[in-house]
Amino acid sequence: MNRVNLFIKNLMKQACRNSYYSTQTGNPVLVEFEDGVKNIILSDEKTRNALSIVMMKSLIDNIRKEEHNPELRCIVIGANGKVFSAGHNLKELSSEKDIETHKEVFSLAFQLMNAIIDSPVPVIAKVNGVAAAAGCQLVAQCDLSICSRQSSFLTPGVNFGIFCSTPGVALSRKLHQSTTLKMLLTGRSISADEAKTAGLITEVCDENELDQIVTSYCDDIKKKSREVLSLGKRFYYEQLNLGIKEAYRTGRDVMVENLQLRDGREGVDSFIQKRKAIWKHGITESI
Amino acid sequence: MNRVNLFIKNLMKQACRNSYYSTQTGNPVLVEFEDGVKNIILSDEKTRNALSIVMMKSLIDNIRKEEHNPELRCIVIGANGKVFSAGHNLKELSSEKDIETHKEVFSLAFQLMNAIIDSPVPVIAKVNGVAAAAGCQLVAQCDLSICSRQSSFLTPGVNFGIFCSTPGVALSRKLHQSTTLKMLLTGRSISADEAKTAGLITEVCDENELDQIVTSYCDDIKKKSREVLSLGKRFYYEQLNLGIKEAYRTGRDVMVENLQLRDGREGVDSFIQKRKAIWKHGITESI
Amino acid sequence: MNRVNLFIKNLMKQACRNSYYSTQTGNPVLVEFEDGVKNIILSDEKTRNALSIVMMKSLIDNIRKEEHNPELRCIVIGANGKVFSAGHNLKELSSEKDIETHKEVFSLAFQLMNAIIDSPVPVIAKVNGVAAAAGCQLVAQCDLSICSRQSSFLTPGVNFGIFCSTPGVALSRKLHQSTTLKMLLTGRSISADEAKTAGLITEVCDENELDQIVTSYCDDIKKKSREVLSLGKRFYYEQLNLGIKEAYRTGRDVMVENLQLRDGREGVDSFIQKRKAIWKHGITESI
Repeated sequence: MNRVNLFIKNLMKQACRNSYYSTQTGNPVLVEFEDGVKNIILSDEKTRNALSIVMMKSLIDNIRKEEHNPELRCIVIGANGKVFSAGHNLKELSSEKDIETHKEVFSLAFQLMNAIIDSPVPVIAKVNGVAAAAGCQLVAQCDLSICSRQSSFLTPGVNFGIFCSTPGVALSRKLHQSTTLKMLLTGRSISADEAKTAGLITEVCDENELDQIVTSYCDDIKKKSREVLSLGKRFYYEQLNLGIKEAYRTGRDVMVENLQLRDGREGVDSFIQKRKAIWKHGITESI
Repeated sequence: MNRVNLFIKNLMKQACRNSYYSTQTGNPVLVEFEDGVKNIILSDEKTRNALSIVMMKSLIDNIRKEEHNPELRCIVIGANGKVFSAGHNLKELSSEKDIETHKEVFSLAFQLMNAIIDSPVPVIAKVNGVAAAAGCQLVAQCDLSICSRQSSFLTPGVNFGIFCSTPGVALSRKLHQSTTLKMLLTGRSISADEAKTAGLITEVCDENELDQIVTSYCDDIKKKSREVLSLGKRFYYEQLNLGIKEAYRTGRDVMVENLQLRDGREGVDSFIQKRKAIWKHGITESI
Repeated sequence: MNRVNLFIKNLMKQACRNSYYSTQTGNPVLVEFEDGVKNIILSDEKTRNALSIVMMKSLIDNIRKEEHNPELRCIVIGANGKVFSAGHNLKELSSEKDIETHKEVFSLAFQLMNAIIDSPVPVIAKVNGVAAAAGCQLVAQCDLSICSRQSSFLTPGVNFGIFCSTPGVALSRKLHQSTTLKMLLTGRSISADEAKTAGLITEVCDENELDQIVTSYCDDIKKKSREVLSLGKRFYYEQLNLGIKEAYRTGRDVMVENLQLRDGREGVDSFIQKRKAIWKHGITESI
């Protein structure tokens, strides 16, 4: 009885989602922005959530368009279906398409990665299934990546004559080189657990816990000051490219800058006064 | 009977330490320099070993002042109490203090990191408890870090409006990025075992083995030539900032330079002659 | 009966190998180039496969000389005996040799690393035993490294007055810094399993599976286009030295370039047409 009810409930939920999606006339992503969290859900199951030109434009647009809205505190990139994303749409990379189309695909992929790095809020990948090629790159470039245990990760481009060169940029900065090179040179897939051990994934969990665990990360993030997180995230990616002493030197100035922010002062003062901090998230007038 | 004796012995040991410390009129660190090893023990339990201005000045001073003394072969930074260090003293970062005080705090933190990197001898963190924020940075910047199993590590600054930007410099160079970003963005703590797997910690052990294991590292280090270790450590940090081919090119010259050192020649020759090497540790006249 | 037969068979195999080797008049490596895979086997057991001047010249020569032969698809560097390689030949580094000899040793080591990085085909280390000092560096610099469970890895140079500065270049780019520094500063060895966890090794297996597992990697690699793998490997090492945004920018152009290659077009088109790709591996005329 209960199982039947659950089944129907899920079907309806699915239907509801689909109906939401179908109203978006051809938009390959479903977007839900509620209570500080923007869920961007890859929803083009027929192409296994391929990062087509249309899909990438939609992702970039949805990551960027409200980035200065103080209500936005966290972005979660998830997916409908068993494949998180199969990577670029190979039809757009065929020799029937001209070089300009090829350039557009990789130019958009470049912009998509920059949109994630430059986003003033943390971007979380929520993975429940296979993430391949540029889909794997997308997961690796997110600030945090949570996945279910049955997820898997691979960069099989070399099997189709396209070495996963840009996925390698993301992977080699998160994963052990030995695992990155195995993936790039052989196209073999790694399990969620291997991805966790090698550094790709922040946390692995059972499928039925995935929503709840991603929500707990979002809740943690929402307790912080957006202004402070934003300053911290920007410096984090900047300092990765510096020598250690130069990174510390720049960091010293960033720490001082942080303390002069309104929420920096409030954070420290409220701690000393043993009261809860009231963040303004970078908004200059009172809220 | 035995347990009682042990308890009294420990109490006396503690009392002895405290008496040593109490002679140092207000110095927040206890220093023991014996048999080649300088133990610098954070001993300001009432502030949870906060890296206050006074504490950092004392650390820098104690790391630097005998660095050219050939008797100094290894530095161990430990702590009294259950907290290794809680990070900067937030009272010195409050809005009641002027920006010059804030600048002094982070300028000293910068000098402290440089003192560790530039120290001609290996610096070991010996952790038995919580290392937070700049305290976690201190652990991460040491050349080797040994901790007890109940230790934990966190960068919770973002909870108090101060993103742990400079701790992130140290963490991102030792730990997986996925773990570093989890710590920085959420403020969550990681266990000793997670810290080991993710790369922060050299070795985890039971609390009652900690002294012995740190001593075994010191003993290993003391068997080497100080002159050779110093050259190697300096190049190690230098090459991290170079592209791989440039690093190999510079390394080639450093290897040749190493072989022209007195202890370099002695090491190779003694090996070939099947005798024990007699190090001079960079001292030019005979010892 | 069967065990006796096996024993004799192995003895004969060994004898065969030895006889092959003995024909190579003093060449310290045994080379077998068959079916796309060049096996370069360190075979100077009396020096524990020391990377002597002669050994390094032979390795460089054998890695480089057929690198543009389209038949060459993969290089495997293995070893006869219980020691993969003990590192440089200390006799060539003694104070009896002049500085020009020392310079030659490290200049050849530099060229050997460059030969591996620049090789247009993947280079796999196949390790069944101890890899020490420059021998450990050799393993770390290979694109993939497979080892048996009883293998071990160490950089003990500091015990002999020569800090393993150049091995540190390779190790610090593959392994956790905490493990790298432990190895460099103390000279301690790590097990195969620790080497896997810390990032040095691609895969650990039982000794009796080693041949088969390395072959499976070679087989995977042979299914790809040599031309595409070559472009991908070159970019991989290039992008490691770039900041992330610069790496993505360059990667974007490399992806477009990849698609204009003959095998890039063939790979994508065959996938869309649901047929097996026919690679030409960069050969311009038909094969």
